[in-house]
Amino acid sequence: MGKVLLDMAMSLDGFIAGPNDEDGGLHDYFFSPSDATARVIEEGFQTTGATIMGRRTYDTGAEQDGFVDTPYKVAHFVLTHDAPVRAASGAEGFTFVTDGIESALKQAQAAAGDKDVVVGGGANVAQQYLKARLVDEIQIHLVHTLLGAGIPLFKHLGTEQIELETTRVIEAPGVTHLRFRVVK
Amino acid sequence: MGKVLLDMAMSLDGFIAGPNDEDGGLHDYFFSPSDATARVIEEGFQTTGATIMGRRTYDTGAEQDGFVDTPYKVAHFVLTHDAPVRAASGAEGFTFVTDGIESALKQAQAAAGDKDVVVGGGANVAQQYLKARLVDEIQIHLVHTLLGAGIPLFKHLGTEQIELETTRVIEAPGVTHLRFRVVK
Repeated sequence: MGKVLLDMAMSLDGFIAGPNDEDGGLHDYFFSPSDATARVIEEGFQTTGATIMGRRTYDTGAEQDGFVDTPYKVAHFVLTHDAPVRAASGAEGFTFVTDGIESALKQAQAAAGDKDVVVGGGANVAQQYLKARLVDEIQIHLVHTLLGAGIPLFKHLGTEQIELETTRVIEAPGVTHLRFRVVK
Repeated sequence: MGKVLLDMAMSLDGFIAGPNDEDGGLHDYFFSPSDATARVIEEGFQTTGATIMGRRTYDTGAEQDGFVDTPYKVAHFVLTHDAPVRAASGAEGFTFVTDGIESALKQAQAAAGDKDVVVGGGANVAQQYLKARLVDEIQIHLVHTLLGAGIPLFKHLGTEQIELETTRVIEAPGVTHLRFRVVK
């Protein structure tokens, strides 16, 4: 079985998006990558077997991009309280999970096989998996900007201290790719 | 005149201390440095001409350590609304400033000469100088741990996006030393 990887882009002041879901350039590294960053992204494509995201991330994507797929051509599991009001047309890659994070993880792991499950859409989802201590590794793409306001990744964590073992630091223009193993 | 440098240790989840001012290992890198970190610290000693801190940082230090000095053997300026209720005995290196951040900066710059003024004690003080756009450079010692709760460095910033130009990334065990120029 692969690992459970929390993989998110975050500003230096801890935000994953601006106050109104605007990107604030946080994903410029992904769409216009340097060579160093391109290798990190390509690795992600090779090792990711399924993703888990929140309903808000899905809806935002569906509204903005039609969201018939993500850059990751794998099965996506969307955590939601309800069945979707409006499934994006053609979005066959998305499965809506209404019975909690452990169920979503089980389904994602079955779909991923030996590859990793990436928890990567929405601070709320990331926080839930971290709090439940279900995350094996964390990759933070630390984007060198101060958004000033927005949606914080870790604000509502409220856990005991979580120890991390650094496995990799990759410097790239405007972004540092930090990778950690969660000490359990 | 030297630069105004905001220099702080921060956990991956954005805290400069735990909920009750506990260190949470955030300054282990400073007191047990690796070779790479030791060079960063030594550089700080060489280039720092004065420091500015908040009253809370002063009081915490005074209570915990007697706070007759800091590791930086330079003049220290403490921002406070009142004259200190209880000045630590022997704390001759500390000047209390009651007329605001610009006055403190002016006094610190006069004391620092050609060297840098380090803004480095307390999230509130850091935020005030950032908001006033008085910071030239930022050095974050990003400590690879998730404190889970505590005193956030950037939470209350609430500014427009502040652009940063990365000038240096130094990888060290358990900490990444990130240095930026603030684009004005």
